[in-house]
Amino acid sequence: MFFASDNTGPTHPAVLQAVIEASDGYALPYGNDPWAARAQALVREVFEAPDASVHLAITGTGANSMIMGAMAPPWSAIFCHEMAHILIDEANGPQMYSGGASFAPVPGAGGKMSADGLRAILDRYAPGDVHTPARGPISLTNITEAGTAYSLSEIEEIAALGAKAGLAVHLDGARFSNACAALGCTAAELTWKSGVTAATFGGTKNGCMSVEAAVFFDPAYDAAFLRNRMRGGHLLSKHRILSAQMVAYLTDGLWLTLGAQANAAGRYLADGIRAHVEFVDEPAGNLMFVRFPRALHRKLHAAGAQFNSFADVGTGPDDEPIVARFVCDWSATPENTDRFVDLLKAG
Amino acid sequence: MFFASDNTGPTHPAVLQAVIEASDGYALPYGNDPWAARAQALVREVFEAPDASVHLAITGTGANSMIMGAMAPPWSAIFCHEMAHILIDEANGPQMYSGGASFAPVPGAGGKMSADGLRAILDRYAPGDVHTPARGPISLTNITEAGTAYSLSEIEEIAALGAKAGLAVHLDGARFSNACAALGCTAAELTWKSGVTAATFGGTKNGCMSVEAAVFFDPAYDAAFLRNRMRGGHLLSKHRILSAQMVAYLTDGLWLTLGAQANAAGRYLADGIRAHVEFVDEPAGNLMFVRFPRALHRKLHAAGAQFNSFADVGTGPDDEPIVARFVCDWSATPENTDRFVDLLKAG
Amino acid sequence: MFFASDNTGPTHPAVLQAVIEASDGYALPYGNDPWAARAQALVREVFEAPDASVHLAITGTGANSMIMGAMAPPWSAIFCHEMAHILIDEANGPQMYSGGASFAPVPGAGGKMSADGLRAILDRYAPGDVHTPARGPISLTNITEAGTAYSLSEIEEIAALGAKAGLAVHLDGARFSNACAALGCTAAELTWKSGVTAATFGGTKNGCMSVEAAVFFDPAYDAAFLRNRMRGGHLLSKHRILSAQMVAYLTDGLWLTLGAQANAAGRYLADGIRAHVEFVDEPAGNLMFVRFPRALHRKLHAAGAQFNSFADVGTGPDDEPIVARFVCDWSATPENTDRFVDLLKAG
Amino acid sequence: MFFASDNTGPTHPAVLQAVIEASDGYALPYGNDPWAARAQALVREVFEAPDASVHLAITGTGANSMIMGAMAPPWSAIFCHEMAHILIDEANGPQMYSGGASFAPVPGAGGKMSADGLRAILDRYAPGDVHTPARGPISLTNITEAGTAYSLSEIEEIAALGAKAGLAVHLDGARFSNACAALGCTAAELTWKSGVTAATFGGTKNGCMSVEAAVFFDPAYDAAFLRNRMRGGHLLSKHRILSAQMVAYLTDGLWLTLGAQANAAGRYLADGIRAHVEFVDEPAGNLMFVRFPRALHRKLHAAGAQFNSFADVGTGPDDEPIVARFVCDWSATPENTDRFVDLLKAG
Repeated sequence: MFFASDNTGPTHPAVLQAVIEASDGYALPYGNDPWAARAQALVREVFEAPDASVHLAITGTGANSMIMGAMAPPWSAIFCHEMAHILIDEANGPQMYSGGASFAPVPGAGGKMSADGLRAILDRYAPGDVHTPARGPISLTNITEAGTAYSLSEIEEIAALGAKAGLAVHLDGARFSNACAALGCTAAELTWKSGVTAATFGGTKNGCMSVEAAVFFDPAYDAAFLRNRMRGGHLLSKHRILSAQMVAYLTDGLWLTLGAQANAAGRYLADGIRAHVEFVDEPAGNLMFVRFPRALHRKLHAAGAQFNSFADVGTGPDDEPIVARFVCDWSATPENTDRFVDLLKAG
Repeated sequence: MFFASDNTGPTHPAVLQAVIEASDGYALPYGNDPWAARAQALVREVFEAPDASVHLAITGTGANSMIMGAMAPPWSAIFCHEMAHILIDEANGPQMYSGGASFAPVPGAGGKMSADGLRAILDRYAPGDVHTPARGPISLTNITEAGTAYSLSEIEEIAALGAKAGLAVHLDGARFSNACAALGCTAAELTWKSGVTAATFGGTKNGCMSVEAAVFFDPAYDAAFLRNRMRGGHLLSKHRILSAQMVAYLTDGLWLTLGAQANAAGRYLADGIRAHVEFVDEPAGNLMFVRFPRALHRKLHAAGAQFNSFADVGTGPDDEPIVARFVCDWSATPENTDRFVDLLKAG
Repeated sequence: MFFASDNTGPTHPAVLQAVIEASDGYALPYGNDPWAARAQALVREVFEAPDASVHLAITGTGANSMIMGAMAPPWSAIFCHEMAHILIDEANGPQMYSGGASFAPVPGAGGKMSADGLRAILDRYAPGDVHTPARGPISLTNITEAGTAYSLSEIEEIAALGAKAGLAVHLDGARFSNACAALGCTAAELTWKSGVTAATFGGTKNGCMSVEAAVFFDPAYDAAFLRNRMRGGHLLSKHRILSAQMVAYLTDGLWLTLGAQANAAGRYLADGIRAHVEFVDEPAGNLMFVRFPRALHRKLHAAGAQFNSFADVGTGPDDEPIVARFVCDWSATPENTDRFVDLLKAG
Repeated sequence: MFFASDNTGPTHPAVLQAVIEASDGYALPYGNDPWAARAQALVREVFEAPDASVHLAITGTGANSMIMGAMAPPWSAIFCHEMAHILIDEANGPQMYSGGASFAPVPGAGGKMSADGLRAILDRYAPGDVHTPARGPISLTNITEAGTAYSLSEIEEIAALGAKAGLAVHLDGARFSNACAALGCTAAELTWKSGVTAATFGGTKNGCMSVEAAVFFDPAYDAAFLRNRMRGGHLLSKHRILSAQMVAYLTDGLWLTLGAQANAAGRYLADGIRAHVEFVDEPAGNLMFVRFPRALHRKLHAAGAQFNSFADVGTGPDDEPIVARFVCDWSATPENTDRFVDLLKAG
């Protein structure tokens, strides 16, 4: 009953096999390995972007922070949702890599920045006055931190607002494949065809050991990213370990297959628990937030179910509904979920 | 008709005279001048805080940013109102001096952080998880950016919340004297007696040429502030220019006299225009935001009145009410204000 | 003929096997995996330091930079040899993680900071003046960047100078095991018993896939390191990948066996080429710099030998001696070396 | 007997008068005052550079650091003499404003970077490898920190080396006027005519209250400088205080007159003491370092002479020669110097 995160599961066998093979023999370091070029080519192919700049990083926080470091000058503000991972969960990494950019949090229901919310905040950061931080990039997360998904038209609307103001758009795709699977769209549609300038393309939460790709559809940010990757200690000498994972992940559409699997597992779980919990938002993929009574949280944890409770489980009224987060990864099985749902139903 | 800011007016003669005197002859540099110790002693006396650390800075943005740099670790978040000067108007200075702290904006009516708003945001930055920025200091502005004032009990309530969470409290006092005059309280009451840990004590907007004091009631931040002041290029070799201003400003209560004068001028203006404009918030001191029709903005600007309009004055419906900001400094005269009010009344 | 670096070779089978095992099944993320505690315990055991703080990082540049970030305030200067990796080869990573510390390069023959050199530079950074950067930590590399080794008494002398000045000492041990093997000393003797405060304990160059340990013998730096590790994107969600490597590396003395193997391979190479090249410094371990004619560089590269030439090989006098760097890792075989030496001898 | 620094003396009456006048009445803040444009025009005129970007700062450390912040990316190294003020005496300010650039100290006799020394260090920072900090700007100080002066041809040689490597050149002119007076050259010759890209044009040490100008002959750095000036808290609201000083300083050649006066005072002092001390370097302007016995230091200090001794005066052999620094500013009088020389001669 592992629903704590999609980073707690096993490495997919095909990815592991690639790492095993790449661990043997000699290869030049720092991205000069033969797998590196193959990984870059595959990312470009998947994104239908032959000119994209593609670089690998070891973590999602690293990739996001280094992309922000390349896109956001130190005197600028990054526009993101007020629950964005880069704002709340990356320990000021974007600040460090950018040399001091700030955030301009944008409100919006369901974990999604609203166009009206963005307009209002953009007004607050009107250009032309050296006192106010300059307008920096807009960053969206898809699948969002609330488990919902921006539709392509929602991304387009925000990107159009950005374009009008001369701002680039970043997509935090820690759950990129889940978003594509949920929306039934291509990687290109989720990004540059909708106006996105750069994306974090996540592998770690979807069967990889630990690898993310930074994908830039505008070459302007390339040099700064590469310098920051080295400064941050993210350029692996044995870079082939990263390359090999990405090659396996992109071969034969594995990335999308696994994302669809995880989403299906998420749907199966959601359907199983729907009658017994209150959904904070209707989940789009493999991640969901629901409310149910504290006493039940306690019971499920005691039974060995792994999930996050966003309140003190130990103290407080037994029947007060508190929020839980459940995540399914590609390896989740119906049996595991059934067992959990049965426990939950038993109340 | 100068209402653009309280930084557009003349230097008070007593302050100017002190600068003239200090400009003559020889003095050791970098704060080793004889005026420096006198200035520090006077600040401590005014704050009834014989152990306070007192250091001078040349600007308010510098003082605030360097104080934040001393109080906020790079991995922390600073809690401030969503309209706070440090968030919106200091060009990411606090980020630079702190090495990358972020902001956690707190909502609240009338430019004042509400205790409930602060509680909710503190929850979002729960300690114990290395992903979330650590809880940094709380920063209040008084007179607020909206022209209102936190009462002593409001400051106490926020400081108590902070103390419970182990957080220090900073008071941005660019208009410190106006706040004291408005609340009828002492400098000590406005700060440490209400739970404030450190304050920016502004002089520039209130008759000084350019000087602010950073006042720490907790010695923990002293060393970092002094290093940052030097790193930032704020340690004047001819520091006596700053010292002399502060000495004159604190002699015979000039600081409070001038603040009261500015507030009285503000009240006189507010009363004069009240029947013809809509106040965004009822002003507490010398700063106010009001709405009146765009056409009238245009007319007043054309007549030479200096004030800020927070919308495009040139285009848009003539009768749409748009926001203007008026500020009176210590030197504002009734004649000047009468002239302006007459123009406004004429419509 | 792979002598380019000790980061170009294969992962040791025992390390790979551990990664394979750890890749299976479910484990809590972010260092809460069961292997993490085991790795920490083994490091403490190897260092005979039951109270040491131990944290894993993915790269040596990351580990060094984050340790410097914890030990060097932004207003301080780090004392290191003028050829130190942290100064020349880490792309200003220590600057980023420290928020702006500078370097005070110390001269010294054979890649080793001399005590006299350090004394002279310490004098230049005399404390008590806020203009001069504060004295930060001293950082030594062992095996040095020149392929030599500091003896224990040399480390002690420098650490004693540091201690007298109140300065902590860091040891960059990218080739830690090679240093221990070369000096015939224990990990404890190489570090805390000689006055070292914190060490980077390298695994990547010695049979691991990609892992380093930051080891602090003084708990003062722990919190800052952990915050910086997260800020920098170095806290792997699938941290077990790192833990497992370190566990295998420290089991049954594998770390030291492999270091000794690499040193033996280095000696074998050095002895083979000694008659035909000029050594810049006598090598202590697995890394050496030698001079021989440019034409020979060209010939060896053409024959497929991998090593670095520190000058333009293509142009310039054929018989001008230019510098080459050779490194042997644990997997180097006599056959491979013989083949290379034969080529070299053939001239 | 004030020889401690040229920042200990009085403000020149013409500068003071300008400040007095500018302190009266109303003026727009933040550099929109009428004096600002006049100051910029005068700087451009003096530098014969009608397209130069000119911005004022309050201190030399601030100006230097902010210029470095604009010219040096965070992943670059700044080339400067190993005794440079920006390296040793600005508390890591350039690091902070640049977001983490490092220094590459260049050796050279007499406080002057030698062309050969620069060539050797440039080689160490060879481009094309992401590990090594990128080559950043070259920064020269004239009058140097040793009291000597780079000749125009020396500047040209270094700037040519820089140009060949694609590097910009900064001139730290805390004693700019002294350098012009010493070399008998124009401001243009000292800078852009010799290949300099940007200069700090100092006023504070030469009769101003506290003002420096940052002068860019290449517009590429303008935007970053302006953002950094605001971030650093160096954009004075009452900017007219700075503008007025600069206007007075540049009117009727006052800047050069005062520099020549200070140099003449320096020469008078040097000639007076020459027979009794050993010069570390022959002084070019108003600043000199000399050696004479410790006991004499003690006696002179006891007699009230103000100068810096670079060793412990209190303890150590009486007859050991230790270094003293003497500086004369524009206001130094022969009588004052005669009195000091007599004391020195008396031994």
